[in-house]
Amino acid sequence: MVGIADVAARAGVSKATASRALSGGGSVAAATRERVRRVAEELGYAPSTSAVSLATGRTQNIGVIMPYLTRWFFAEVLEGVQTALLDRGLDLTLYDARPGSAARARIFRDFLTRKRFDGLIAVGLEPDVAEIRQLAKVGRPVVGVVTPAGETSCVTVDDDYALRRATEHLLTLGHRTITFLGGGVDEQGREQWTHVDRRRFEGYAAAMTDAGLSGEIRHIRSPTSMPGGYAAAVDLFGDARQRPTGVVATCDEVAVGAIIAARRLGIQVPLGLSVIGVDDHELAEMFSLTTLQQDPREQGAAAVALLLAHIEDPARTPTVVRMQSRLVVRGTTGPADPARAPAVLDSDRTEKQ
Amino acid sequence: MVGIADVAARAGVSKATASRALSGGGSVAAATRERVRRVAEELGYAPSTSAVSLATGRTQNIGVIMPYLTRWFFAEVLEGVQTALLDRGLDLTLYDARPGSAARARIFRDFLTRKRFDGLIAVGLEPDVAEIRQLAKVGRPVVGVVTPAGETSCVTVDDDYALRRATEHLLTLGHRTITFLGGGVDEQGREQWTHVDRRRFEGYAAAMTDAGLSGEIRHIRSPTSMPGGYAAAVDLFGDARQRPTGVVATCDEVAVGAIIAARRLGIQVPLGLSVIGVDDHELAEMFSLTTLQQDPREQGAAAVALLLAHIEDPARTPTVVRMQSRLVVRGTTGPADPARAPAVLDSDRTEKQ
Repeated sequence: MVGIADVAARAGVSKATASRALSGGGSVAAATRERVRRVAEELGYAPSTSAVSLATGRTQNIGVIMPYLTRWFFAEVLEGVQTALLDRGLDLTLYDARPGSAARARIFRDFLTRKRFDGLIAVGLEPDVAEIRQLAKVGRPVVGVVTPAGETSCVTVDDDYALRRATEHLLTLGHRTITFLGGGVDEQGREQWTHVDRRRFEGYAAAMTDAGLSGEIRHIRSPTSMPGGYAAAVDLFGDARQRPTGVVATCDEVAVGAIIAARRLGIQVPLGLSVIGVDDHELAEMFSLTTLQQDPREQGAAAVALLLAHIEDPARTPTVVRMQSRLVVRGTTGPADPARAPAVLDSDRTEKQ
Repeated sequence: MVGIADVAARAGVSKATASRALSGGGSVAAATRERVRRVAEELGYAPSTSAVSLATGRTQNIGVIMPYLTRWFFAEVLEGVQTALLDRGLDLTLYDARPGSAARARIFRDFLTRKRFDGLIAVGLEPDVAEIRQLAKVGRPVVGVVTPAGETSCVTVDDDYALRRATEHLLTLGHRTITFLGGGVDEQGREQWTHVDRRRFEGYAAAMTDAGLSGEIRHIRSPTSMPGGYAAAVDLFGDARQRPTGVVATCDEVAVGAIIAARRLGIQVPLGLSVIGVDDHELAEMFSLTTLQQDPREQGAAAVALLLAHIEDPARTPTVVRMQSRLVVRGTTGPADPARAPAVLDSDRTEKQ
């Protein structure tokens, strides 16, 4: 059987360097790492997991805990994390911790305490006080995505900025009655604010207040999903007296639900209604949705880099990496009063819609 | 520190039974398993991973390899697998193997050969010949979902039945010009048939042939996504001369894309066009979509059960578990000639749409 010594000899490096190159740990020049890997492949060398772990004291495995696997944002972050880990030769162990589920209780009780990972990435976990205590007890570095998981580092978008920017975009187009759609309720219809929806609502409210429109601040609850946004928007648009000219949605899925609702009710977008979202979801282009773009894969990759830094240096100070989102103007936002807008702009938008 | 002996003594069972109860391996009565777990929790016992592995020769870990994390079907299967594994105290290591990616090559080359799992679930992997050879070399049981991964067991829906049933539903409603929409092309627009799309097209074609309509068999390519279905349907519906009265979509996402395209072009569904899908996707209800329902979570759970049986008995004969889908009639399918249909049925459908 081929051993690490054979690989090291053939690649012309020390056993320690060969081991580091293959395990992904420690610093090895990129060219050396590639050469060692190529040699290992040629020789058919497969490191024994337990041997690697004994040598490094590490599992070569990163845990990822997230409340939803099937939502766009979470699945995209997971892809970003997975790609970054594969690049470094590290495994990914997944924990699906839906809020309030028995599985979540078991993960915290049984799985995390096994410490089968060198560090943990907690995506949008929103842990309660008891869970934060349990995470701290695990004794492995933790990095949050979206929100910190206790006193941990975190990668997130600047939600306050994103929603201010979205709201200002509509204000600049002359809108005065702008409703914030989404959040404030879970999928079962129970009242609940996630940190993200709360911060996004606050960004919207701040922009409205800055524009002297604090009296117009308005929130319509909806679960964070396309059907949720659709149902809430049907109610909101159904009564012509309360219908706003602009909708700021807490995410693109809710925004798309609102656009579909508008079409069903015969309201033209953007002639009769402007809609803006947050995400740049894979469906945004199909619906020509104006949105504040974020890149969840990039957030996943950044979380991996941050976590590995904490694993290398456990004494490292927790940091928050805040990524800025970018306004992408497409066809669902237009002047509040189309009659007074330049004709060219208007036809452009209608065409693109 | 609390050991397995303490747990066994308190629970009134042998050490071997306590170990089996906590590891999820072997047969232990459900009540006993629950009692041992409760005692372990009370005593704060956390089994050492390496100790468990040394004792059982197993990693207590199942690998899941799938080409897409962000698509509905795959994410749902993953949830089903995760839930079933958590119930048994087993970890899940995830491998994201997008077709043609460098990451996929590395997974097959570096990760699978480490054998850090007791068995592998391959979801919709569509491995090529070289990959099948590599999977066989890993020397761990493999179970496929959607398609087998070589000579392995597999959990799948009966695609042939589903598409025959979907097509027959439209035939029964009097449709004669029925187009199959979807498949035959990848996301980059290159010609490519997945096994699933191929089998689904064949089910549709068989039903058309049985109805004496082999001359009407028609396929429009589209990537398996909502935007893909939308773009293909805009082309198909744009030319009134070639427009069918019925569309059988290869999945609900493509079907929803077609419905949105129809609405944009002013075609009333189902008065001017019937659309049927496969999946019962989370958006199906919102679009009142008639569909053939499948349950990917159930498929994930069944794959876990099958894999554990293979791990217990490596000599077990590979089996294919074929799940039947169920027709769910909603509002997007109606008579081909609404004028000749009973008025009540018609208004019912229109209301529901």
